Amino acid sequence: MRAIDIIRKKRDGRELSPEEIEFVIRGYTRDQLPDYQLSAWLMAVVLRGMTGAEIAALTQSMLHSGGVLDLSDLPGRKVDKHSTGGVGDKTSLVVAPTVAAAGVPVPMISGRGLGHTGGTLDKLESIPGFKANLSLAEFRQVLETCGCALIGQTAEIAPADRKLYALRDVTATVESQPLICASIMSKKLAEGIDALVLDVKTGSGAFMKSEEAAVALGELMVETGVRAGKKMVALVTDMDQPLGNRVGNALEVEECIEIMRGSGPADLRELCLELAAWMLFLAARVTGLEEGKGLAAELIASGAALERFREIITLQGGDGGVVDDTGRLPQARHRLPVLSRSNGFVASIQCEQVGTAALVLGAGREKKEDSIDPAVGIALHKKVGAPVHAGEPLLTVHYNSDARLNEARRLLEESYTIAPQPPLSRRPLIHRIIQGSPRA
Amino acid sequence: MRAIDIIRKKRDGRELSPEEIEFVIRGYTRDQLPDYQLSAWLMAVVLRGMTGAEIAALTQSMLHSGGVLDLSDLPGRKVDKHSTGGVGDKTSLVVAPTVAAAGVPVPMISGRGLGHTGGTLDKLESIPGFKANLSLAEFRQVLETCGCALIGQTAEIAPADRKLYALRDVTATVESQPLICASIMSKKLAEGIDALVLDVKTGSGAFMKSEEAAVALGELMVETGVRAGKKMVALVTDMDQPLGNRVGNALEVEECIEIMRGSGPADLRELCLELAAWMLFLAARVTGLEEGKGLAAELIASGAALERFREIITLQGGDGGVVDDTGRLPQARHRLPVLSRSNGFVASIQCEQVGTAALVLGAGREKKEDSIDPAVGIALHKKVGAPVHAGEPLLTVHYNSDARLNEARRLLEESYTIAPQPPLSRRPLIHRIIQGSPRA
Repeated sequence: MRAIDIIRKKRDGRELSPEEIEFVIRGYTRDQLPDYQLSAWLMAVVLRGMTGAEIAALTQSMLHSGGVLDLSDLPGRKVDKHSTGGVGDKTSLVVAPTVAAAGVPVPMISGRGLGHTGGTLDKLESIPGFKANLSLAEFRQVLETCGCALIGQTAEIAPADRKLYALRDVTATVESQPLICASIMSKKLAEGIDALVLDVKTGSGAFMKSEEAAVALGELMVETGVRAGKKMVALVTDMDQPLGNRVGNALEVEECIEIMRGSGPADLRELCLELAAWMLFLAARVTGLEEGKGLAAELIASGAALERFREIITLQGGDGGVVDDTGRLPQARHRLPVLSRSNGFVASIQCEQVGTAALVLGAGREKKEDSIDPAVGIALHKKVGAPVHAGEPLLTVHYNSDARLNEARRLLEESYTIAPQPPLSRRPLIHRIIQGSPRA
Repeated sequence: MRAIDIIRKKRDGRELSPEEIEFVIRGYTRDQLPDYQLSAWLMAVVLRGMTGAEIAALTQSMLHSGGVLDLSDLPGRKVDKHSTGGVGDKTSLVVAPTVAAAGVPVPMISGRGLGHTGGTLDKLESIPGFKANLSLAEFRQVLETCGCALIGQTAEIAPADRKLYALRDVTATVESQPLICASIMSKKLAEGIDALVLDVKTGSGAFMKSEEAAVALGELMVETGVRAGKKMVALVTDMDQPLGNRVGNALEVEECIEIMRGSGPADLRELCLELAAWMLFLAARVTGLEEGKGLAAELIASGAALERFREIITLQGGDGGVVDDTGRLPQARHRLPVLSRSNGFVASIQCEQVGTAALVLGAGREKKEDSIDPAVGIALHKKVGAPVHAGEPLLTVHYNSDARLNEARRLLEESYTIAPQPPLSRRPLIHRIIQGSPRA
């Protein structure tokens, strides 16, 4: 087999065999194929696409480039949830302890934020002492003890993905649904799960701006998971405005604790219950979605979810006391309200711009090496459809650096559109549900 | 400017500016851009194409990556001829001395053969002592002395093309009309010519199998030359069977000498007169094509063309005596006729297969580093349409190595199709003429 023939075949739009894909991925991971052949191949994949069978083969090759967790000796069906990323998208911090509190193991390996979206790990690390970089052995131990562990990518998992991603990042080959799908799925399949709930975001704050693109990616990932023998669902959910009312790491942890105390914003609570219900359903802990939502709501109302969250934090070295006193989370030194200039209703919020404002304040990173400020962020007081008066605060900026305030403020002011009438229609929270199961 | 943005722009099918193209080519030639970014960009060009303006800009950037000959102090309009390559395609050896004998300077920088096609330089180097690797200063001197010089690529000319070609060769990005066009034209424009005649081959022995592809490439090259201020014509000519009756380096030199002695095969003579006529016409040496053909035929009949060929050979260090005695050219040790198995007519000759047979015998090279055997090759006795009897020789193989004979013989036997009736139609020698002149 020769790399050039495989590049040519993909260039000409023909389907590659699993052996050909394995040859490329294995050769590259082992430094036997040069970067310049891989980047030509990646560009051909971006422009020619891949069939479902090719994506499944690519996912398997990337998966088996590293270690795969075997959790089969742990009782129960293991289930995880993954989001494609959004602004204020913090559901993992609620659903993981809730589902674990129902007795379903949740082995969750998450990513960091990049660009305008936040990452679960950054949020968790705003909790004083919390350690996200456990080894796989430590991860397993926490999982066995409390039914849930929340860690970051380790060097053992899918090394091909890391190497490929670094190349894609500098060759304009990131934006490809087959490559995105294989990247996500190879890492998720390494977790030793039986089922996976995907939250595919769509709208102005998501990577997939159009519903069509989000649905297509959801379908690809569900198909790929099913081919790997997993029970799958993808919920295509709204990201046209931030989810919940807080954007920024410690601010979002605080909001998740509010949800687990039974309060918090309705949209965030609704999506958390929906995702938890799907996880419980795919794990066969409940027989239907309504039952799942009921159980999740019950575990929140009883305080069991919050207690489980405290336990996870403590086992991972963090200050479990934050669940009683969110004042122990990092706080920004300054707050500034941004006021409405007119009377009317919030017609739209440019969601990506809100995420970029949080990034500018220091809540995110533009490059992987950047460090972040856990305390800064934005608290929204008005969401789409809300009535506002001139002079009333739309949001409050939590900031530490005057130098960064002005650009963030300008972005935030520009992100709100106020109209004289309330919007005629509202986008649904859940746009589409794509479900798939392997044949028995 | 950033390379990744330029790659992305081309990936998304948008037109690059001359400055963006210059940034890529200059950066790569100066080792400021890595191979892996170039190969991603090249693949995007292969799959997205380029506009005429982009090809012109790419050609200029590649041209100006090296030295450009200035022949403006030499009297007369300088004209060259370039072929995209075929089997038995040897017209340069006839037209260059013929046109020079008419007083029109011909500064010709040629390539070597690769794959199943032959190269002008390899043919010339079968003449004992002939030196094709002159410096540009020596080239100029020969040109001034006898109005024609025939050399190979020098390191001074279009270094960007050499570097890009080496990368294209290993990343499956060779097959792209814009890239092929810019590669050819950047080298031709470096010769200091005023006009260029292109011979774009089409058929089973050409790189462009379909007439559509050949016409498209011819149009691109003519447009690119016109944008650079040159008078241009592209003749799309037939390569569905070998041109003339000989394939192999010394064998082809011998056939060219026959043509210049006034004999030789009709198809080769006709194409040589046609190409020479266009060169004379574009150089304004004649006022029409018929006049050009007449002049070329006259220069051949008078022996002036052959004398000029002797002069060029001698000035470039070769044995000019070969024009009187072709027995001084290298001769293969063995000859084997390949006989027809049936009565009938030659319906077709798989032209690429004949070229591959010559390659197998040692007349060509599979890789650039391979050395060639100047003596071996094939003499065809029957071309398409000819009547044959069973047992009559179709061709004679000239070979030096028994080990290589069998595969070549099998290829040659399979390349002929004999039918009971003569073919109903014949392909024309010239399929299309594409002409262009810069605005005055």
